[in-house]
Amino acid sequence: MSCNHLIDLADLPMEQWDNIIHLALKIEQNPRDFYGIMEGKILATLFYEPSTRTQMSFQSAMLRLGGQVIGFSNPQNSSVAKGETLGDTIRIVNSYSDIIAIRHPLEGAAKAAAAYSQRCPVINAGDGGHLHPTQTLTDLVTLVKEKGQLDNLTIGICGDLKYGRTVHSLIKALSKYDNNKFVLISTKELAVPAYIKNILNSAGCSYTEVFSLSEVIGDLDVLYMTRIQKERFLSEAEYEAQKNIYVLDTEKLSLAKKEMKILHPLPRVDEITQQVDNDPRAVYFKQAQYGVFGRMALIIRMLSKQDYQQNLFYGTSQTGHPCANPNCITNAETYLPKHYIESGDMLVCEYCEQKILI
Amino acid sequence: MSCNHLIDLADLPMEQWDNIIHLALKIEQNPRDFYGIMEGKILATLFYEPSTRTQMSFQSAMLRLGGQVIGFSNPQNSSVAKGETLGDTIRIVNSYSDIIAIRHPLEGAAKAAAAYSQRCPVINAGDGGHLHPTQTLTDLVTLVKEKGQLDNLTIGICGDLKYGRTVHSLIKALSKYDNNKFVLISTKELAVPAYIKNILNSAGCSYTEVFSLSEVIGDLDVLYMTRIQKERFLSEAEYEAQKNIYVLDTEKLSLAKKEMKILHPLPRVDEITQQVDNDPRAVYFKQAQYGVFGRMALIIRMLSKQDYQQNLFYGTSQTGHPCANPNCITNAETYLPKHYIESGDMLVCEYCEQKILI
Amino acid sequence: MSCNHLIDLADLPMEQWDNIIHLALKIEQNPRDFYGIMEGKILATLFYEPSTRTQMSFQSAMLRLGGQVIGFSNPQNSSVAKGETLGDTIRIVNSYSDIIAIRHPLEGAAKAAAAYSQRCPVINAGDGGHLHPTQTLTDLVTLVKEKGQLDNLTIGICGDLKYGRTVHSLIKALSKYDNNKFVLISTKELAVPAYIKNILNSAGCSYTEVFSLSEVIGDLDVLYMTRIQKERFLSEAEYEAQKNIYVLDTEKLSLAKKEMKILHPLPRVDEITQQVDNDPRAVYFKQAQYGVFGRMALIIRMLSKQDYQQNLFYGTSQTGHPCANPNCITNAETYLPKHYIESGDMLVCEYCEQKILI
Repeated sequence: MSCNHLIDLADLPMEQWDNIIHLALKIEQNPRDFYGIMEGKILATLFYEPSTRTQMSFQSAMLRLGGQVIGFSNPQNSSVAKGETLGDTIRIVNSYSDIIAIRHPLEGAAKAAAAYSQRCPVINAGDGGHLHPTQTLTDLVTLVKEKGQLDNLTIGICGDLKYGRTVHSLIKALSKYDNNKFVLISTKELAVPAYIKNILNSAGCSYTEVFSLSEVIGDLDVLYMTRIQKERFLSEAEYEAQKNIYVLDTEKLSLAKKEMKILHPLPRVDEITQQVDNDPRAVYFKQAQYGVFGRMALIIRMLSKQDYQQNLFYGTSQTGHPCANPNCITNAETYLPKHYIESGDMLVCEYCEQKILI
Repeated sequence: MSCNHLIDLADLPMEQWDNIIHLALKIEQNPRDFYGIMEGKILATLFYEPSTRTQMSFQSAMLRLGGQVIGFSNPQNSSVAKGETLGDTIRIVNSYSDIIAIRHPLEGAAKAAAAYSQRCPVINAGDGGHLHPTQTLTDLVTLVKEKGQLDNLTIGICGDLKYGRTVHSLIKALSKYDNNKFVLISTKELAVPAYIKNILNSAGCSYTEVFSLSEVIGDLDVLYMTRIQKERFLSEAEYEAQKNIYVLDTEKLSLAKKEMKILHPLPRVDEITQQVDNDPRAVYFKQAQYGVFGRMALIIRMLSKQDYQQNLFYGTSQTGHPCANPNCITNAETYLPKHYIESGDMLVCEYCEQKILI
Repeated sequence: MSCNHLIDLADLPMEQWDNIIHLALKIEQNPRDFYGIMEGKILATLFYEPSTRTQMSFQSAMLRLGGQVIGFSNPQNSSVAKGETLGDTIRIVNSYSDIIAIRHPLEGAAKAAAAYSQRCPVINAGDGGHLHPTQTLTDLVTLVKEKGQLDNLTIGICGDLKYGRTVHSLIKALSKYDNNKFVLISTKELAVPAYIKNILNSAGCSYTEVFSLSEVIGDLDVLYMTRIQKERFLSEAEYEAQKNIYVLDTEKLSLAKKEMKILHPLPRVDEITQQVDNDPRAVYFKQAQYGVFGRMALIIRMLSKQDYQQNLFYGTSQTGHPCANPNCITNAETYLPKHYIESGDMLVCEYCEQKILI
């Protein structure tokens, strides 16, 4: 049996995205109509690092479809502690479930899991700092619902643009739609990496990099706020210096358009004040709800017959080169065949997308 | 949408209690008749401190109604670790579930949760040393089933009467029924606090405070035993001095009436010997079963239309005064609006019921 | 109500085993036909030590039958931390569920649990180094499916034959079928204990003890590989000396019969190389799948009416002798009545099967 996985939103052709987004909105209109579709099916949520919100969102999605859920939320309670490889765990969980959502601290882990999953589609629920496609799906469903469109938008993205994988995924996704403009609001230390600018340039998207939120907020159709994640900083001092630079409060919000929408991947710490929550432009809590509908739509599509073929790897298997990224799953699970795509004088790891010079 | 919460049994009018208790007894007669009522509904059990028994009782109740369950049992696995406020967690879980049971180590946490829950009724499954209304509901269902009445009873309560929140709740509840007499059996160090005596006095209930269990056991219709909780003592020495004073054994039990019933909120440690378990007067294991039926009845009532309105706060919001109780949720989650009711020269915190002088 | 437990496969008459194995194979043919049989029933998985695989296998089995699951996977989150006895926990969980699967680090714990379970059948999901009957059931289902028979087989068992409880159980079970031959492949340090040889001798089974896997692999119909478990060794050095002696690779496998089958209770560490996974003789991942079907069959049989009576204890209760096994549950839960069977000048503990001289 072949099956289709969701490792990166880019794996899916754009018409599939639209398909899933529109199914999500149909579900939102009347969720009870979809209850029972997954009766007798089991979702395994394999969370090698805790993420209560994402795990509960998947669980809720599967249960609202009438399916069931098994899984774990903690590596200490898993067989990993007994020295089992990820590949073996996945092969065994294929016997216990019908679809798998995996969260892992290492980059490329979801693709590695998919490579060993013969029977169950695998959904990437976050692989280290790399990808988190169902968050991006959530963002897209929110935009379609709240703005009615995914193109012709001026999108401000504010906060941690360097480490925030949800930011990178969202930029990649929205750069594929026509005529979107990006306003990238951050400190120099937390600016978007060069490869994201390359994507924007290749897509012909206009973007600006600015420091001040207040100066640009009036231009925006969408403001995507992000949390400064303590765990991404090397020192407490660096974190403290950056964490409170961007705070969206009612004063700054008074400068924004009436129809601007504020999104946030949550959890929020201090970067949006509680007074903003009551403003109709704040849609970040609704976003969590759209996330459940998006995941319901995704599960339905992934367990239905698909009319496209999917390869996980395009390059040849090359055993000579270890991946240069210490957080790549191939450096922890050393039995995994290495796969690279050649790109000029570089090799790109097909698990974590790290580039290495040859 | 408005919704009703259960923070304190006192929130409900007495006819509602009777209503829920009698529904519980109807369920007990034929539990399978109620299977399917909650089909497609999800209960979130948010346990910020572990309590396997209470959590499994709620889970069993929801599953026996045909509903489903999500949640967590451990604060380390929750988004709390990422710095999320309780208010945000509740707003998000409103998207994932239909009803919420919350357990929290801080007092007033369930009311704070309710204040942020727009769509889901919130059940207090224990907030620090403050309230635990579903335990009291369990006790009342047990008494109606085993004694046939909630009035005209002589009720002995033995053990930790100082820190035991289940004891305080039960006394408050039973003081509302006619002609109950209380025999309060404890050491001086673990005697009931003054405010409980005030409640008994206001209700016109007769009560006596005694040291010896043997001397009074013959008078009792009900003996409510409690565990001396190690975690409530400041030192190991104080705990050791108190823990074995009250032990119900077959010798003491031989002095009791034939129709007396022994209740215990469980877990039991050494305060009831195992020989007592086989006595027909011991109903504490049945009590755990009645607890499931009580929670089934509660879930049904809370997810049905209610004909009464519920306010969470009656006093005005006053930001000037921090609550004097260091374990009050308002001191940990500082964004919460403070609410106090004036009572003479005191303010009473509407979260944790701490009184502060003004 | 009386109910039947599964503590040891030897509790069941052999026709019951065949019955369950054949039901498992019927389920394997069309699992969906069995969906709904357990609707409204709850399985409690009480895991006093984590074992993700076994717990998920039970959960999957119950959910695939249309039932539901509650439980815990971690002793820290259970009421044990509050000093509750196993007996009390079991009596309470009887109110929350319809069938119980218990995993416990101490030997005899499942039998102790059964002694307190009045309403729910108890399944032993592993009690310390003692028994793990559902693993043996899994092995038997696999052999019937993959070899078509449980008799007339030459069975090689390789690795840790000293501490491996799955090995001991499997030998006991297969020794009851006609004309099986055992080839016991291990170092001297990890050889089978004397009591297992006694069982083989009593059953009239032929067996040989050898050191070299390569020299005997060509004779085998079945090769049962096992993991050398680090936690069983007293020192790191002893573990390191033993762990890599037996590694099944494609070279050794080239010496085996075409129709030989390789089983492994999993998790596998390094004792089978990944290249072997692709060989059609490797059935250890299918084995995990058969384990789900075996557990489905077992749950169905245990919750159906049974036509045989079951005693848990055959000897008289003797309080004078503590069990000599420090890991016996009776030494941790001291209220448990001791039970011994006399056997010559020995007493055999009926919980953990330890023999003590009298």
